[in-house]
Amino acid sequence: MQFHYQNTALVSEQEIVTTAQSLQDYVLHLQDVVKQQSYTADESSINLPSDEELLDMVQKLSVKKKTDNLKYMVVVGIGGSNLGTKAIYDALFGYYDLLEPNRFPKMIFLDTQDDAVLHHLQSLIKTLNSKDEILINAISKSGGTTETMTNLEVLSSFFEKRFGSSEDRIVFTTDKGSKMHQKALELKIDTLTLPVKVGGRYSVLSAVGLFPLSVCGIDITNLRSGAVKMRDICVNYDIKNNPALLSAAISFLHSQKKRNINNHFFFAPQLESLGKWYRQLMGESIGKEGKGITPMVSIGSTDLHSVGQLYLGGPKDKLTTFVYNTHPLHEVIVANIMKFGLVEAIKNMPVSRIVRAIVEGTKIAYHKQRLPFVEIVLDRVGERELGAFLQYKMIEMMYLGKFFGVNAFDQPHVELYKTETKHILVQGR
Amino acid sequence: MQFHYQNTALVSEQEIVTTAQSLQDYVLHLQDVVKQQSYTADESSINLPSDEELLDMVQKLSVKKKTDNLKYMVVVGIGGSNLGTKAIYDALFGYYDLLEPNRFPKMIFLDTQDDAVLHHLQSLIKTLNSKDEILINAISKSGGTTETMTNLEVLSSFFEKRFGSSEDRIVFTTDKGSKMHQKALELKIDTLTLPVKVGGRYSVLSAVGLFPLSVCGIDITNLRSGAVKMRDICVNYDIKNNPALLSAAISFLHSQKKRNINNHFFFAPQLESLGKWYRQLMGESIGKEGKGITPMVSIGSTDLHSVGQLYLGGPKDKLTTFVYNTHPLHEVIVANIMKFGLVEAIKNMPVSRIVRAIVEGTKIAYHKQRLPFVEIVLDRVGERELGAFLQYKMIEMMYLGKFFGVNAFDQPHVELYKTETKHILVQGR
Repeated sequence: MQFHYQNTALVSEQEIVTTAQSLQDYVLHLQDVVKQQSYTADESSINLPSDEELLDMVQKLSVKKKTDNLKYMVVVGIGGSNLGTKAIYDALFGYYDLLEPNRFPKMIFLDTQDDAVLHHLQSLIKTLNSKDEILINAISKSGGTTETMTNLEVLSSFFEKRFGSSEDRIVFTTDKGSKMHQKALELKIDTLTLPVKVGGRYSVLSAVGLFPLSVCGIDITNLRSGAVKMRDICVNYDIKNNPALLSAAISFLHSQKKRNINNHFFFAPQLESLGKWYRQLMGESIGKEGKGITPMVSIGSTDLHSVGQLYLGGPKDKLTTFVYNTHPLHEVIVANIMKFGLVEAIKNMPVSRIVRAIVEGTKIAYHKQRLPFVEIVLDRVGERELGAFLQYKMIEMMYLGKFFGVNAFDQPHVELYKTETKHILVQGR
Repeated sequence: MQFHYQNTALVSEQEIVTTAQSLQDYVLHLQDVVKQQSYTADESSINLPSDEELLDMVQKLSVKKKTDNLKYMVVVGIGGSNLGTKAIYDALFGYYDLLEPNRFPKMIFLDTQDDAVLHHLQSLIKTLNSKDEILINAISKSGGTTETMTNLEVLSSFFEKRFGSSEDRIVFTTDKGSKMHQKALELKIDTLTLPVKVGGRYSVLSAVGLFPLSVCGIDITNLRSGAVKMRDICVNYDIKNNPALLSAAISFLHSQKKRNINNHFFFAPQLESLGKWYRQLMGESIGKEGKGITPMVSIGSTDLHSVGQLYLGGPKDKLTTFVYNTHPLHEVIVANIMKFGLVEAIKNMPVSRIVRAIVEGTKIAYHKQRLPFVEIVLDRVGERELGAFLQYKMIEMMYLGKFFGVNAFDQPHVELYKTETKHILVQGR
């Protein structure tokens, strides 16, 4: 993963470096957190990718639960409990699920509760031949998430109608000692725990993400090693080579100049869910006390034909991060003798080169319109680079919290609607 | 479809009505356009849903092309050429594609060009037994869209490797007289045309949307009748009962008060693609001359666990439109005796009632935080209501263009990156 920002931002190199330098003490604090390798600090999620005990625990349960004929891994969780898993699964497999009807296991995500989704899921379960074809992973830090428990209750009742007892095909992931943990012990349900200090949006590299990803054949060792390498770069005081600190400083400085929308523009459609993971990370970490930056996700070139007009011709209120990769996984080339021949320029062109021309064309257009942007260049869409991206973004958000003077680890306002909702549910009986 | 706004906006009833009244002449103009039933005015897309010739043309070709064993309808198009079709397909079928592996036909969308997608699509085509199992609809107003032509050239070469000649399994949709139209005549490819004056983002109810939707079993008659009924309401000068004029006035007035982000918050996950359709409609119609509102799409309750913290606790820069439906399609109820029982409040509750409690809880939280919102309430997620929503939003955007003093029918800045991209492609040879 490379990070580029020179000559494309609205602020000077000097401003960026000076701003970044103001967090020297915090960089040292992060280094201390890594040295301790424990889970006591708010930032301790950065110790997950080098936690060998965690890897061992996940791999053992993965071997125990993964059956040869597994068709569906159902992840029941919302927000931090599924966005990271979905980001990685979709990037590597999920985006092609419809095109690969015979590749299994497939991951099904139940986040919000929806009657039509549950109805169709019941029909799907009826078509399965054996309980070994399905595995359920219910994930909730507290165990008290309304959506997750609604989906889990309904799903387990469908399962039991078809196959009888479901306990052996369910795994819980929750905080150690939570009510959900106690219930699991009572019902003899296999359980993975995560440290209390690791919040949902920082939990993708805990058992929350590693277990379902591992069951679906994703190389979690490479995911972790990419994250470890990136962590060590992002807690280093060598500012010019620390992408997390640099991009946090750049985002902060642009928000001071009324660029209060942060648009992550992925020129790789399989990374849309990765964008949605980042959207939570930034939204919950920084959006508080009346402060914050609004994160947006765009897909290139799709959204150039949608909101591109607004970006290039509308209000100058955005900082853009272009994300693209340099090595395609498959070589596909337009024929030399085209059947239709309506666009001469694509003749005999590799598809990846057309994509790259659009990226470069877009950058030139942004430059000419004086629209600020930075770039993240991935070598390829693979576990190692994705792990690096995840870790980079999580540490960036810790720095950004410091710049804004807010706590990057709480989300006090999420309770507001929950309280009202529970009140309505209880009153409505 | 109902529209609610009273006591939840930041502006007074008087301001809204006065602002709306300023467009009296334009309302009369729209009425004239409807009376003429022709395609000469910029606004003439509003005549599509009552165009009987169009319906007849689409239905005849649909009958001709739809085979009994059709498995995949591949829509090759980007921006206005696929977003509306995807909005309706996903709302009614596509969101459940993974849960219904044996329901056919399924729609596959090729918008941007991606080597991995094309690679997997080739593998899928190899598994098909007959060319009757696949139908390709390539859509481009000009016929010169780089992404669409790249995908079409590659896809047709895959098809021909497997089945030989592809002409009889391809349909073109394009402007009458375009290069693509000429090529179709030359190759004897069935072609549907759309009026030149109907721009991509206003074309969902033309052959662009109607043909692929009809082939996939969507009731386009109901889609159209919902649109006709809504059109007649939205070109009526009875302001208080004209949701398009009211909500355009409300959006405009809030943008004057620095609420420059318009967040459409759908409490129905199958409507996310409908949100993306609206995102183009607003982005391209209003985002120009340095003016505009940034459209955002959120999904409830999913995004309450993601960007909800930012919305409730961050900068007050958004106007929110809540969209939800009152009649679920399937009744699913949480058991009276729950297996896990970790959230007592959901016991014996219909899932739809839990969703509704979250909607109401969220509205109360917004109200307490003094965050402005309006509401669109759909009776159910079905063709008639979706047609009404589409037509309402398209006419809203025409009014909004007038309020902002911009041309709601052009998109001059989209050319900027295209010019640069073609330059790079040609130079790079």
